[in-house]
Amino acid sequence: MKVGIIMGSDSDLPKMRKAADILTVFGIDYEMVIASAHRTPAVVHDFVERIEREDGVAFVAGAGAAAHLPGVVASFTTLPVIGVPLDATALQGMDALLAIVQMPSGMPVATMAIDGATNAALFAVQICGTRDANIREQYKQYRVDMAAQVISKNEKLQAELNG
Amino acid sequence: MKVGIIMGSDSDLPKMRKAADILTVFGIDYEMVIASAHRTPAVVHDFVERIEREDGVAFVAGAGAAAHLPGVVASFTTLPVIGVPLDATALQGMDALLAIVQMPSGMPVATMAIDGATNAALFAVQICGTRDANIREQYKQYRVDMAAQVISKNEKLQAELNG
Amino acid sequence: MKVGIIMGSDSDLPKMRKAADILTVFGIDYEMVIASAHRTPAVVHDFVERIEREDGVAFVAGAGAAAHLPGVVASFTTLPVIGVPLDATALQGMDALLAIVQMPSGMPVATMAIDGATNAALFAVQICGTRDANIREQYKQYRVDMAAQVISKNEKLQAELNG
Amino acid sequence: MKVGIIMGSDSDLPKMRKAADILTVFGIDYEMVIASAHRTPAVVHDFVERIEREDGVAFVAGAGAAAHLPGVVASFTTLPVIGVPLDATALQGMDALLAIVQMPSGMPVATMAIDGATNAALFAVQICGTRDANIREQYKQYRVDMAAQVISKNEKLQAELNG
Amino acid sequence: MKVGIIMGSDSDLPKMRKAADILTVFGIDYEMVIASAHRTPAVVHDFVERIEREDGVAFVAGAGAAAHLPGVVASFTTLPVIGVPLDATALQGMDALLAIVQMPSGMPVATMAIDGATNAALFAVQICGTRDANIREQYKQYRVDMAAQVISKNEKLQAELNG
Amino acid sequence: MKVGIIMGSDSDLPKMRKAADILTVFGIDYEMVIASAHRTPAVVHDFVERIEREDGVAFVAGAGAAAHLPGVVASFTTLPVIGVPLDATALQGMDALLAIVQMPSGMPVATMAIDGATNAALFAVQICGTRDANIREQYKQYRVDMAAQVISKNEKLQAELNG
Amino acid sequence: MKVGIIMGSDSDLPKMRKAADILTVFGIDYEMVIASAHRTPAVVHDFVERIEREDGVAFVAGAGAAAHLPGVVASFTTLPVIGVPLDATALQGMDALLAIVQMPSGMPVATMAIDGATNAALFAVQICGTRDANIREQYKQYRVDMAAQVISKNEKLQAELNG
Amino acid sequence: MKVGIIMGSDSDLPKMRKAADILTVFGIDYEMVIASAHRTPAVVHDFVERIEREDGVAFVAGAGAAAHLPGVVASFTTLPVIGVPLDATALQGMDALLAIVQMPSGMPVATMAIDGATNAALFAVQICGTRDANIREQYKQYRVDMAAQVISKNEKLQAELNG
Repeated sequence: MKVGIIMGSDSDLPKMRKAADILTVFGIDYEMVIASAHRTPAVVHDFVERIEREDGVAFVAGAGAAAHLPGVVASFTTLPVIGVPLDATALQGMDALLAIVQMPSGMPVATMAIDGATNAALFAVQICGTRDANIREQYKQYRVDMAAQVISKNEKLQAELNG
Repeated sequence: MKVGIIMGSDSDLPKMRKAADILTVFGIDYEMVIASAHRTPAVVHDFVERIEREDGVAFVAGAGAAAHLPGVVASFTTLPVIGVPLDATALQGMDALLAIVQMPSGMPVATMAIDGATNAALFAVQICGTRDANIREQYKQYRVDMAAQVISKNEKLQAELNG
Repeated sequence: MKVGIIMGSDSDLPKMRKAADILTVFGIDYEMVIASAHRTPAVVHDFVERIEREDGVAFVAGAGAAAHLPGVVASFTTLPVIGVPLDATALQGMDALLAIVQMPSGMPVATMAIDGATNAALFAVQICGTRDANIREQYKQYRVDMAAQVISKNEKLQAELNG
Repeated sequence: MKVGIIMGSDSDLPKMRKAADILTVFGIDYEMVIASAHRTPAVVHDFVERIEREDGVAFVAGAGAAAHLPGVVASFTTLPVIGVPLDATALQGMDALLAIVQMPSGMPVATMAIDGATNAALFAVQICGTRDANIREQYKQYRVDMAAQVISKNEKLQAELNG
Repeated sequence: MKVGIIMGSDSDLPKMRKAADILTVFGIDYEMVIASAHRTPAVVHDFVERIEREDGVAFVAGAGAAAHLPGVVASFTTLPVIGVPLDATALQGMDALLAIVQMPSGMPVATMAIDGATNAALFAVQICGTRDANIREQYKQYRVDMAAQVISKNEKLQAELNG
Repeated sequence: MKVGIIMGSDSDLPKMRKAADILTVFGIDYEMVIASAHRTPAVVHDFVERIEREDGVAFVAGAGAAAHLPGVVASFTTLPVIGVPLDATALQGMDALLAIVQMPSGMPVATMAIDGATNAALFAVQICGTRDANIREQYKQYRVDMAAQVISKNEKLQAELNG
Repeated sequence: MKVGIIMGSDSDLPKMRKAADILTVFGIDYEMVIASAHRTPAVVHDFVERIEREDGVAFVAGAGAAAHLPGVVASFTTLPVIGVPLDATALQGMDALLAIVQMPSGMPVATMAIDGATNAALFAVQICGTRDANIREQYKQYRVDMAAQVISKNEKLQAELNG
Repeated sequence: MKVGIIMGSDSDLPKMRKAADILTVFGIDYEMVIASAHRTPAVVHDFVERIEREDGVAFVAGAGAAAHLPGVVASFTTLPVIGVPLDATALQGMDALLAIVQMPSGMPVATMAIDGATNAALFAVQICGTRDANIREQYKQYRVDMAAQVISKNEKLQAELNG
């Protein structure tokens, strides 16, 4: 199982690396590329086809502004595509959000929050988990750990308040 | 493999039935319920747990206004949750869209377009397709058929223009 | 009489502490916890039930992004819930505002301004005041003091202008 | 205990009557008036003072456009004020929502959803319930009835689906 | 000289025909097709390349929702592309507007008003006019006629007012 | 002739002083006060009545958030009221803009751009100019000077470009 | 004293006539024309200059979409210009509102609510009233009558409620 | 062939210079001026007429706030006008975007992204390219270079990832 991570510009890299970090935590293979829906569509196409052939399970595609990349990836594959609208313009990600989430009937893109690359990767993990019980267990544990973190932060607050 | 379809109110039914129709086309088993995140959270919880046990693959959750249902479903399961913001108030779905898509880190909901129940089901089909080659082939054929429809509509236009 | 203050993340603490400060000024008992609607719903549930039992009067719930916490608290109690949308994303609180204020019929959340934790606590004070004439008098005095501050600032301005 | 319902124009009446209907269901005394923050501020003032004197517990104030009425009521009283933004202009209630919810520090208005008069009254019921155990029990029953309605609607759906 | 008019769906046809009507008025050759950026990208590509070869001057591309078609056309050609955001969803064209106008640096799309197919064609006429003095003269006359219409409507109003 | 400048908080002072500066340039008498529509309505009322009596011509009222002050001033006077929405919250002035400009029928407030205190004063100057030919001449000269500034900035640019 | 009413299109006439109706009520002379900032700028210019010469006091300018007409009128005159943003596109007047209210420093336009032609005329009346005590008295009476209407509507409601 | 670049204020210069830089790269003659639609309309008019006479091909007009300049330029010429909405106010360019893109029927302005001066110039290059095969070839090469940059950035990323 492999996840393809794709973004349109190297300026998106700091935000999109979080997706790679999550997949690393879960031991899920990934490739991450910079390729533009408009400038290098053939590179996008080749990447998508190769990931599909190499047991790809899902794509995570991040883009800002008039964010077409996730939709273009979706049109090149029948695998699930997870879109991450990036806050990259004066409109603070609302442009990217609408350009990704409002995909027309027949061509879905699973849209995450603005700058939500972590959630995009976790959603890919969930998809992998529908096939691999081990990953699903890992993700359950991740949830337990998240809950523990919240509880621990609360304990710190209670200690301070009751200090 | 089974998909759980859930909505908060019977007024959402006409829009959410489209999700059921798509799953029927693909021969994917589903259950569809009305249950409210705030009014009947226990019903939501029981439904989610049962679908999970019965080889559930994904949930499609539709909600309007301050649309919490998809996020609440996500908090009850580690299966992928696909959210459909519904246009149900004076704000025409923008409220539901933001209340679904902006889920915090660690708890993703795959958000579709406003009133995008068809795409939600197709995305569930894509997830099923990552496990079942047959469904994947069906979905590829669905795409080919969609393309054929566009081409046929264009032919009609050309006939008229050149008539 | 006790007020429950709840927030989903420790990053909300600097803003939500203002609610606690106000309650302290009015001598109203409160508890303040960090608990997440999605990550630790059981903690939220236990907190809400306990406050209710311990002569709770109202809840103040702060949340950012797809802010479900106030609505989830409301579904766990019949006490008044006061929601504080927090500016925590690129959408600057508009997401949290709509996710809190647009609650469906039957499950109200009293929504305050974005980052309005002070007003949330003052509104809780007003609710306490409907039961306790002393608190009501205190709140009347608070209003008088606020007016005096405005008047004093104006006097400073007049002194400068007429310098 | 009495609730004051106030609106700026008779065109708001069809929406605001729902608040009166809810209070009637709960057997809570109310008065309902049409009075304008800008055109008849003295009438607003007299109404607010009288309700306060007559064991008033809360105000429900509905207004559209640049909706100042709830804030003006709040400035005349120390009782809790619940604001209902009404969809009355081309901006579909967004103007009224922001003009009510963004009240400055020190002068809270508990804001409901656009056109949310029912929820405004239910929130007033909740405030009354903090003083009167009987009303609180009634409200708990109201919640149980709401849940039963959702469950009954679901049963109808299941009957149809399982035909 | 030829203009290519393209839209993603036959539901866009009533609005996009206005572009064809304008080009007919100016005697400019055009072809108009239905082809989808996501469903039939190859058809889009072939159309764009053929129009380019056949002395194409500009493209008019209309699309609603997450409107990628104008940008995709732009990525296939170095001719000017004029985009028409269409009001086709609950967001009333704001989604299409942002998805077209916010094109990233290096890949411009000349965006018109929502549903502005007439202006798109007039802008194509202006581009043709930079090459063909005759068309430029025709367009100047069109402007003169528009002015005359406004003046005539005013005369009618004056007649009525002074009647 | 005198203009009343009023704002709700001393935090508005740096922006509202620009209105006073403009009036000083034109030699128009003004008074500037801090007074709150909600906290010190009586002070607002007294100020408005006094300015009216002392040959007041117009009011300039600045406010942020749920900006009621200009409307409240308008309800206290029949003189023209000019409203300045201030950018004072996470919503960057959009809340204040809608709360001022969407005044209901019968109670106009002349709304300026967000943070547009300079223009508010210039508009007051224009109103004074309808009564006082001297002020009108001064304003004409102000316009000429503004034009000269633009021309001089352009000359500097041309010098640089042709340098 | 005369007021110039101007609009860009005859489709604006039904909304803008309300301005004329108000001026008629107050016995204020007006001229009303259709003239376009972009199509017939010379007609706009001539109208503005003539009204100025004929003892003009203010202009009321209504426009929808990218509403430039009020700003263009403002650039042609030093008289006060009152702008009415009209709901004429899919964006429901938000485009016109921003295109009118956000005028740059030095060139104010007094902006009214979307479709607020009545208030525009009343504001012109207020400006006339700063010069003419008779008009000011009439406007005071208009306010009294408005208040009486609200009171009468309330009386009807009370009669019904207490019926 | 010459392109006219125009902006309303010297504060726009840093953003608009990018348009000049692009034209320099392509060896296309241009003039760049500061002139205001409202303050110095005659300067705008003279500039537009002169560029038209001197073999002008297109205009690039940048403006912020209630951005009327591009539309005013369009009304002075029959050449194509390319508008650049600038982020210059608290509304972050949304005001300028709507004030430019929503031009009424008959008077198109080709709107670029907020702050999109580079794309505006590239679009002017595309228009020049419809007349001059050499420029068209240069623009094709520019596209090839852009693609090469994306590919090179990706290679750097792959080197790092595989490092």
